[in-house]
Amino acid sequence: MSKILSSETWERLRSSGARTVALQFPEGLKRRVPETAAALKEAGYAVIISGDPCYGACDLATDALSLADILIHFGHAPVDDRPGVIYEFVQFDFDPEVAEKATSLLNKDQPVGLITTVQHAHLTDKVAAVLEARGFTIVVGDGNARTPCRGQVLGCSYASARSAGTSQFLYVGTGVFHAIGVGLATGARVVALDPYTGFVQEADASRLIRRRFVQIEKARKAETVGIILSTKTGQRREDLARHLVSLSPVADIICMQEVSPDSLLNLGYDCYVNTACPRLAYDDQVRFPVPVLSPPEYEIVRGVRDWDDYIIDEI
Amino acid sequence: MSKILSSETWERLRSSGARTVALQFPEGLKRRVPETAAALKEAGYAVIISGDPCYGACDLATDALSLADILIHFGHAPVDDRPGVIYEFVQFDFDPEVAEKATSLLNKDQPVGLITTVQHAHLTDKVAAVLEARGFTIVVGDGNARTPCRGQVLGCSYASARSAGTSQFLYVGTGVFHAIGVGLATGARVVALDPYTGFVQEADASRLIRRRFVQIEKARKAETVGIILSTKTGQRREDLARHLVSLSPVADIICMQEVSPDSLLNLGYDCYVNTACPRLAYDDQVRFPVPVLSPPEYEIVRGVRDWDDYIIDEI
Repeated sequence: MSKILSSETWERLRSSGARTVALQFPEGLKRRVPETAAALKEAGYAVIISGDPCYGACDLATDALSLADILIHFGHAPVDDRPGVIYEFVQFDFDPEVAEKATSLLNKDQPVGLITTVQHAHLTDKVAAVLEARGFTIVVGDGNARTPCRGQVLGCSYASARSAGTSQFLYVGTGVFHAIGVGLATGARVVALDPYTGFVQEADASRLIRRRFVQIEKARKAETVGIILSTKTGQRREDLARHLVSLSPVADIICMQEVSPDSLLNLGYDCYVNTACPRLAYDDQVRFPVPVLSPPEYEIVRGVRDWDDYIIDEI
Repeated sequence: MSKILSSETWERLRSSGARTVALQFPEGLKRRVPETAAALKEAGYAVIISGDPCYGACDLATDALSLADILIHFGHAPVDDRPGVIYEFVQFDFDPEVAEKATSLLNKDQPVGLITTVQHAHLTDKVAAVLEARGFTIVVGDGNARTPCRGQVLGCSYASARSAGTSQFLYVGTGVFHAIGVGLATGARVVALDPYTGFVQEADASRLIRRRFVQIEKARKAETVGIILSTKTGQRREDLARHLVSLSPVADIICMQEVSPDSLLNLGYDCYVNTACPRLAYDDQVRFPVPVLSPPEYEIVRGVRDWDDYIIDEI
């Protein structure tokens, strides 16, 4: 059987009795669509493709699933697991010995929480063993419905870091976004290790905080505020949107599927509050024409939260 | 009461008993969102905005409506009228005497069918009177569920032209797209009059046909074909998509909300067939990386329709 799908997924497909299979790929893997569809058709299945943009398992292709018996969602671990969905996620290997590079920045006298993203989570125990062999005490926190793997974090959920409860963390993954998020969510010191290059750095949240405070100050002058309410399966926070809109008469709830710079520009509000994917405000502010605040940031603008209680937005 | 909404719409709102009103604007009118929301809130209504792109009443904001009691859809006449929706369309005035400019290109010995788009449909009788005063016989065809105004055409429906049944037409509106569509749908000669500039021209379908045949020829070499199935309320032609996908084993059905060049590029098919808004293939081909065929064009590629039976796609 084709290697385009894991043997476990082929087995789950067979045992499901499905005849029509919907396929959903994140943007970076979409090029695999035609060959994956061909392999499934060769195996006797009818296929429905989801062609909409997708950046996480919080955005399940319910439209495509409604035309099929089962949905295979590629590239992400489950977020609030739903019936009728098989998650085929992608694992990226690296040499666990790379963890040695991080030892100089970690304190051997205190336990180290180990955190990572889903594509590296299969190597968490091996990384822990490398560090334990060098005398470190390693704690791997449990996940939750949104982050099912041990030690896994998402840009919208740091539950496994809180669960570890350590005062220092090692984040294994590229970039510093997740590491900064863990620092903001837990107050702990976080060391970030790129598992491919071995580059180690301490995650510093202060630049993010400074940038966000600039946006908060700009938003104070807004005469119209759009509260964005996502229509995606795992990003739809209706109660939160209703709470935020109740804080001011100049705010309106805006339903959106995709939050794009063009859409925000066309709507013409002076400021937006993002209740969809938290990364939109933190990562994409430079692409947006006006301030796009997180819910806690907007609470600061409206005076129902103090600067000192700044927290990172999680779903 | 504010002039932001027509008195008729205020009256329908009052009599509906609605308390929460959803608002949907096409892209060109979206800047009116904040002031329209403010006027409704001042009148005591709660408001939910639809922030997604919208180019027609075939794309009703069902997500926003599900959070409200009623939806006001701005800028378009009803397409397959649905309960719970008020259509507030925009009328653009012009001087009906401009029709005199078209008389030199029309044949007085045969009846003239009069066609236009919804924003000018309120002046159809006045334009007819100007031409009748000059000795022309004018026929205005009935619309249908998709084009409710007399003489109205859409980029996806020329029913009112067929209903007129004349061998020549005067199209009053900007551009030549609708005029060419009427020509292809009826086989009649069509004169297009820009009501603002008075510019008159005969609509010539031959250039469009030549461009489309180039795309059809390119599509013959495609090894993978994506059949686009829209998830928008009035563009979802599931039976047609299933018919088209059955014509070849290399074709897959692709569900999409927005058909964008980026999405088609990412998916990586050699060719697409568009069962969503017909104008996507005819108007936007230059933006797309590979051929995007209409359903009848794809039937030609698959040998189930002759070149000689080329027809324009209508919903």
